[in-house]
Amino acid sequence: MTSPLAQEAQSLLARLFPICRSITGEGVRQSLAILSGTAPWQVKEYASGTKVFDWTVPNEWTVRDAWIADESGNRIVDFQQSNLHLVSYSAPVKAKLSFAELDAHLHSLPNLPDAIPYRTSYYKENWGFCLTQKQRDGLDRSASYDVVVDTELKPGSLSLADAVLPGTSGQEFLISTYCCHPSMANDNLSGPVVATLLLKALATRPKLRHSWRFVVLPETIGAITYLAQHQAEMQASAGGFVVTTCGGPGPLGIKRSFLGDHLLDRAVDIAFRDAHIKPVIYPFVPDGSDERQYSSPGFRIPVTTISKDKYYEYLYYHTSLDDLDFVKGEALEKSYDLYLAAIDVIEENRTLRSLTPHCEVQLGRRGLYPQSGGALNQKAGTAGATAIENEVDVISWVMFLADGQHDLISMAERSGCRFQDIVTVAAKLESHGLLEEIPD
Amino acid sequence: MTSPLAQEAQSLLARLFPICRSITGEGVRQSLAILSGTAPWQVKEYASGTKVFDWTVPNEWTVRDAWIADESGNRIVDFQQSNLHLVSYSAPVKAKLSFAELDAHLHSLPNLPDAIPYRTSYYKENWGFCLTQKQRDGLDRSASYDVVVDTELKPGSLSLADAVLPGTSGQEFLISTYCCHPSMANDNLSGPVVATLLLKALATRPKLRHSWRFVVLPETIGAITYLAQHQAEMQASAGGFVVTTCGGPGPLGIKRSFLGDHLLDRAVDIAFRDAHIKPVIYPFVPDGSDERQYSSPGFRIPVTTISKDKYYEYLYYHTSLDDLDFVKGEALEKSYDLYLAAIDVIEENRTLRSLTPHCEVQLGRRGLYPQSGGALNQKAGTAGATAIENEVDVISWVMFLADGQHDLISMAERSGCRFQDIVTVAAKLESHGLLEEIPD
Amino acid sequence: MTSPLAQEAQSLLARLFPICRSITGEGVRQSLAILSGTAPWQVKEYASGTKVFDWTVPNEWTVRDAWIADESGNRIVDFQQSNLHLVSYSAPVKAKLSFAELDAHLHSLPNLPDAIPYRTSYYKENWGFCLTQKQRDGLDRSASYDVVVDTELKPGSLSLADAVLPGTSGQEFLISTYCCHPSMANDNLSGPVVATLLLKALATRPKLRHSWRFVVLPETIGAITYLAQHQAEMQASAGGFVVTTCGGPGPLGIKRSFLGDHLLDRAVDIAFRDAHIKPVIYPFVPDGSDERQYSSPGFRIPVTTISKDKYYEYLYYHTSLDDLDFVKGEALEKSYDLYLAAIDVIEENRTLRSLTPHCEVQLGRRGLYPQSGGALNQKAGTAGATAIENEVDVISWVMFLADGQHDLISMAERSGCRFQDIVTVAAKLESHGLLEEIPD
Repeated sequence: MTSPLAQEAQSLLARLFPICRSITGEGVRQSLAILSGTAPWQVKEYASGTKVFDWTVPNEWTVRDAWIADESGNRIVDFQQSNLHLVSYSAPVKAKLSFAELDAHLHSLPNLPDAIPYRTSYYKENWGFCLTQKQRDGLDRSASYDVVVDTELKPGSLSLADAVLPGTSGQEFLISTYCCHPSMANDNLSGPVVATLLLKALATRPKLRHSWRFVVLPETIGAITYLAQHQAEMQASAGGFVVTTCGGPGPLGIKRSFLGDHLLDRAVDIAFRDAHIKPVIYPFVPDGSDERQYSSPGFRIPVTTISKDKYYEYLYYHTSLDDLDFVKGEALEKSYDLYLAAIDVIEENRTLRSLTPHCEVQLGRRGLYPQSGGALNQKAGTAGATAIENEVDVISWVMFLADGQHDLISMAERSGCRFQDIVTVAAKLESHGLLEEIPD
Repeated sequence: MTSPLAQEAQSLLARLFPICRSITGEGVRQSLAILSGTAPWQVKEYASGTKVFDWTVPNEWTVRDAWIADESGNRIVDFQQSNLHLVSYSAPVKAKLSFAELDAHLHSLPNLPDAIPYRTSYYKENWGFCLTQKQRDGLDRSASYDVVVDTELKPGSLSLADAVLPGTSGQEFLISTYCCHPSMANDNLSGPVVATLLLKALATRPKLRHSWRFVVLPETIGAITYLAQHQAEMQASAGGFVVTTCGGPGPLGIKRSFLGDHLLDRAVDIAFRDAHIKPVIYPFVPDGSDERQYSSPGFRIPVTTISKDKYYEYLYYHTSLDDLDFVKGEALEKSYDLYLAAIDVIEENRTLRSLTPHCEVQLGRRGLYPQSGGALNQKAGTAGATAIENEVDVISWVMFLADGQHDLISMAERSGCRFQDIVTVAAKLESHGLLEEIPD
Repeated sequence: MTSPLAQEAQSLLARLFPICRSITGEGVRQSLAILSGTAPWQVKEYASGTKVFDWTVPNEWTVRDAWIADESGNRIVDFQQSNLHLVSYSAPVKAKLSFAELDAHLHSLPNLPDAIPYRTSYYKENWGFCLTQKQRDGLDRSASYDVVVDTELKPGSLSLADAVLPGTSGQEFLISTYCCHPSMANDNLSGPVVATLLLKALATRPKLRHSWRFVVLPETIGAITYLAQHQAEMQASAGGFVVTTCGGPGPLGIKRSFLGDHLLDRAVDIAFRDAHIKPVIYPFVPDGSDERQYSSPGFRIPVTTISKDKYYEYLYYHTSLDDLDFVKGEALEKSYDLYLAAIDVIEENRTLRSLTPHCEVQLGRRGLYPQSGGALNQKAGTAGATAIENEVDVISWVMFLADGQHDLISMAERSGCRFQDIVTVAAKLESHGLLEEIPD
């Protein structure tokens, strides 16, 4: 039984998969157009040559065709078969080459003989082909080969999309993902799919506490371009998520923010705890994805990642085996649920102050206490805690901590109570006039 | 061989045991009178109807009789046999009831078939009987029963007692216990017995560094009443102990204050460490006893508990099996000793400053050093450290830490030396003119 | 194959070994003269009777001869055979004694029957002989003995040496060792040998960031004298090392400073980590060596010790078995290397700020990045990280942390990268104009 969300995720993934994306070009534009059909993304273009901090927006890359043919004219490696065959940003070439000359431009994986690897050469003019080890082993070392790379690199623009959902708190959080890899499912289509579904979900809410800025952009150069073009807004960011590699069959994980114990880290921990899932913890390191840019000294935006088969960690990473068999809607939904739970922890977090801070409140006359005393909390002789006993436990914690210095997140952490139970009880106590919210 | 203290504890326990106590009424008054015969308690009365924060002092409850009789007129459940048979604060009733009607008002414990449970209904008008599971199983389901609850609930007062022993430091500590349970020994007579003996011990001391406020009161409503009526004094409290369930045959334990590492927690840890006892540690939770009131946001008085068979943790908790066989004078003495040791750590704690802070002092010419050097601290070739070598070790730590920023507690913690050794050495060094006390 | 450094260490040790040292006297002066032949030590003398804090510089002790002879006139215990036979600072005596009278002045080690123990009686007038347990067991309990202690205690001076190598930072660090023990190699000649070779090494450097103060002095009274005579300079000390017992065949260890996590402790930890050596950790205690003086409240100079067979910990401690068989040049070199590595961590530590703090820098156009992308950091399908990939990793950490709030030590700690790799990369990035140093 697949849920509607899982079906929608899988369908979106399948539409995006065949497109040949790179850091610029038509593939990115087509992908952004598909995503914009699902959620309110705003596409933006930045012209080649634009200076963005230490970098420059590159020329736009177009592939018309690329192949290697044997002496009989058979296309033995063909971009039309898989867009991974061509090293991304390859410069044009048309030549007849000896095996040795060709071999210097080939990439394959001896330990995964059926996989085509993914390679790029964005900032160094070069060309190359990726092929399976089996293909490579089958080449005739005494033959010559016709090589055609029919590409073009010329001024154009870098495409990305964003969406800002306004909230009332004055705080803005970030959800960032990237869309520059060709036909691979976990790295990186899982990110845009989950981020787009999160955007769709939040965009339909009548009211948000915080502003949420979503961005989908080419990794590295796209994030740098976006930061350079939105410097003030981004420096004010309260933190966020880099959504990536969250659709594999393997373990769920958390990559920590550079702070390690930021509100974001804590919200994610609560989401996992309350879902009874023990994640693999990846401490912050300054590699990986666009946290490299967001965390840089000039921005210091704490970002965390929820992953399922994190980049670097799975065998098929950056190969043609990271395909539609590897990533399924159900796995994407698991990550989506955890992201949404963490977002909700942040959205529903607030700080309350007791209006009856002296001693306990009398729960009984407000209908909040079991009617027969003496047995509450009794371990021996009872058949286990009842729902109202559990609620009394949550009430005790909330009222004890409601000194205006504990937010609901810290209440959930200290008490061990489920965050949603804390939220529910806090609202009930507020409705009884026992608590008041402290403005952010 | 039972010590005089253990004998006195047991004797006091035995006198208090038969009395039917509740949160108000004659039973409490009789109990307070007995305690006042041992130590200088001051009894206070607060009239029913007095507003105390979110609560109101309840009407006073009087039991004249209560029983269930079978069709032959035999009293098969009888308050005269055990005051636990009647749910505390039961409203009056006189009726002939079918088994089914009666059964809705009965409480028993299937897993402890010989135990009468303890139940209350303070704030919801109701009535009920507690009986053993065996008694309940023996009832004739086709018979009818005469039920009499001859009680009265009318304006009176809530009784409690306190005692304030004045000290010189300006700091006041709290020792609180409760006295509202009927005939059960560990919960709760162990508390009033130990607290009363502690009061007796401290009251005879010629001089106290700190003020010590003792209170014995009905749990919850008594503590709330006391706090409401002594708000300013209690808000100035430096912290204290809730003395409860400290007389069972089971393990010694510590319930932490809400801070977890307050001076009180540290004093208790030192008391256990120096007695070579490893306690069960119970982290703070906002349930339990009157720490619920003292720790509330409006007071935030850190309180800790030393227990022996802590409430909730032992099988006979809140049953008739928590009796004079379960609690013995020797067990009460063990807890008493630990409470007193912790109190002494607080009383004897002070901060000293070296008057010779530059380099070590020459111990030899003051007779504080072994006369032959070279072998001190030698592991190989010696028959173990001598007393004076141990003292030199304590002296070294005290002089090293005597910078005016370490009190004796932190010296005992950092050095691992026994607190009383630190106290003795500090006094000796002070008498040699090497240290001076820094006023609190 | 012994290195030149190990040979120099062993040769220096062998020259110092036979000399009879004590806290004052010719033995110390001869030893300091030998050390001054290797490195630029400055010898200083402080007259007997000088008041130094709580102490007084003692009279100078001279031994001319000392022996015990049997009834046939055979010298059965003879200072000429081993200077350990005489208790240091023994007062003169010339007498014929019964066995019982003599025995009260004898020291031996039952568990090490072939070892002569080391004993002193500096501050209590007394005399005594140390001998092996075997010698003692061979004494005739019915015989009488001629005892001669031909010593003299008269005004003279206490000798020590120091050397201050000036740096530019305004911060001064301390390297202290002691030289008051007679013929024992690990405790204490290993200290003066290693400290002297460190002084020799630093003295030849063209430039030092920090000032380094070296002292070699009699333990306790020498350190106290030095501190009293250099109070202002020493109170300004940034911390340092007490070099002692660093030449045994046993385990390398670290005695922590009283702070435990001072810059010195962290530098030593990095030195061990980067050498792939796991030390035995000895927490700070206020005994041991001259850290007792340096750490006293009036100075609070954090000092740490790197040891190899730390005092108290090895079987031959303070016995004649701590000899030239026990300590070898190779072992001294191991400790020397770790001390020098820790010194270099302190010397090379500095704080840098990124000049391109917004996002990553483009490494590619600076020749700092692999030319084909996609495979970097890939676990599967690669033959392991290359040198340039490792350098990119260090660059990423340095640029990420270069916010002006992280020194190179904290970069090495947080990243796990080798300190020297951090130093090299920081210099390279500085030369590219990407970083600037923040003045101390």
